[in-house]
Amino acid sequence: MSINCNKNAPVGVFDSGVGGLTVAREIMRQLPNENIVYFGDTARVPYGSKSRDTIIRYSRQIIRFLRTQEVKAIVIACNTASALALDVVRQESDIPVIGVIVPGARAAVHETANKKIGVIGTEATIRSEMYTKIMQEMDPEVSVIGKACPLFVPLVEEGFAKHRITEEVIDIYLRSMKESDIDTMILGCTHYPLLRSGIRTYMGEQVHIVNPAYETAMDLKELLLDRHIANDVPREDHAAYTFYVSDAADKFKQFANSILPYDIETTKQINIEEY
Amino acid sequence: MSINCNKNAPVGVFDSGVGGLTVAREIMRQLPNENIVYFGDTARVPYGSKSRDTIIRYSRQIIRFLRTQEVKAIVIACNTASALALDVVRQESDIPVIGVIVPGARAAVHETANKKIGVIGTEATIRSEMYTKIMQEMDPEVSVIGKACPLFVPLVEEGFAKHRITEEVIDIYLRSMKESDIDTMILGCTHYPLLRSGIRTYMGEQVHIVNPAYETAMDLKELLLDRHIANDVPREDHAAYTFYVSDAADKFKQFANSILPYDIETTKQINIEEY
Repeated sequence: MSINCNKNAPVGVFDSGVGGLTVAREIMRQLPNENIVYFGDTARVPYGSKSRDTIIRYSRQIIRFLRTQEVKAIVIACNTASALALDVVRQESDIPVIGVIVPGARAAVHETANKKIGVIGTEATIRSEMYTKIMQEMDPEVSVIGKACPLFVPLVEEGFAKHRITEEVIDIYLRSMKESDIDTMILGCTHYPLLRSGIRTYMGEQVHIVNPAYETAMDLKELLLDRHIANDVPREDHAAYTFYVSDAADKFKQFANSILPYDIETTKQINIEEY
Repeated sequence: MSINCNKNAPVGVFDSGVGGLTVAREIMRQLPNENIVYFGDTARVPYGSKSRDTIIRYSRQIIRFLRTQEVKAIVIACNTASALALDVVRQESDIPVIGVIVPGARAAVHETANKKIGVIGTEATIRSEMYTKIMQEMDPEVSVIGKACPLFVPLVEEGFAKHRITEEVIDIYLRSMKESDIDTMILGCTHYPLLRSGIRTYMGEQVHIVNPAYETAMDLKELLLDRHIANDVPREDHAAYTFYVSDAADKFKQFANSILPYDIETTKQINIEEY
């Protein structure tokens, strides 16, 4: 497939499901001219408990699908896929592919004063230690505490984000981190910004919370400008946003409309296993 | 593929992941001569939040895989797949396929005195109302209360089965059922027997708890005898048990060894999307 140099071509964004919409939302805010094709792998969600080989296979299929949509760049909005698959799929790709880990890591390293940083994420993300490796490459003096919080995603998906149960689960997972002296914490899973207020209240105001979505959109902007592929045509209406999922398009659309600044008109379902 | 009339052929058992091992365990107990090929779809687990079309597609792939193992009969150990896919895949199959819903429903209808039955399960199982339909066909006077308990599976998988948090989640999900006058409750998801003691304590001794795994193994036994395909060769050692998964074979093996009466020697990983 040839490299797409058309500035008007969309940016591809993908995630294991709905969580990556928090990244798409930031791109819509910061890059209002960019068209977006979003893919959520709702038929195989979640990724956080699965193996590296499987996450790489799924990411390759999704990238093959996004290439059929003639995207000019790809954002892996999922922390798990960014941690386990980005290195491999980027090498295979002739268009730029970025993940959420490097931008989140850079923001945290920039933010910390005492060089003690906490990272929370899925089991696979934390086990990969990718945030730790990248932050210590940026600043070898940084020390990192990682904690997998596997119940956070189902709690968010079940609508328990503000529930007393979730406060207790936050206490169970984050107590050791609260008792440590970290001054910065990375929300290393795209679902976690939806628990931000509970986590902030629990951790206290002295801990700076980093949401990699914001930094990822900034990185994407810089990348598109550097390569001269940013969409610089001013628009009257918002850009074109297209949504694909591998299962349950209606449920996805409902969730998306609750968190995006624009209403999604349609979400199309595709069989991702065919790619 | 020709029908396999070899009595020594294995029984195929499948589930979205590890939960179906509670059914496999019952088959091992009640039908010690039967060889078993188990498949757990760990790359695409969970099924309970996914759509009917997707569950049917996944079930068809798994059945095609199990046929390559020359099974003589198939047990769908997953409640969600039994509720959403059994009708379709049974019609397409020339070997017998049974699920867990009919056996569980029959046991509950047999057990209830006041004809008021509760069913708990995944979102997809409860929304299908399959337990209700089947029990009301068996006895039109039965009334059924269904309740989806989507956090139970992640709580079990995170090792929180005996945790205080789980007691609170049981209270949130089952309070209305406890305040009703049901005298029988079906554990309509293969993970739930692992929460049995907490559910029993909460609901009280007046409520009879039905685990469809036990009844399913009894149904399988009857089916194999009826069709003259039961394995009647007495053995010195236990029968042959083979385990396949679509992801993370080691993690599966570890879980399986914690709940099965025999240690699994190997678990093989296959790419189920190729079937």
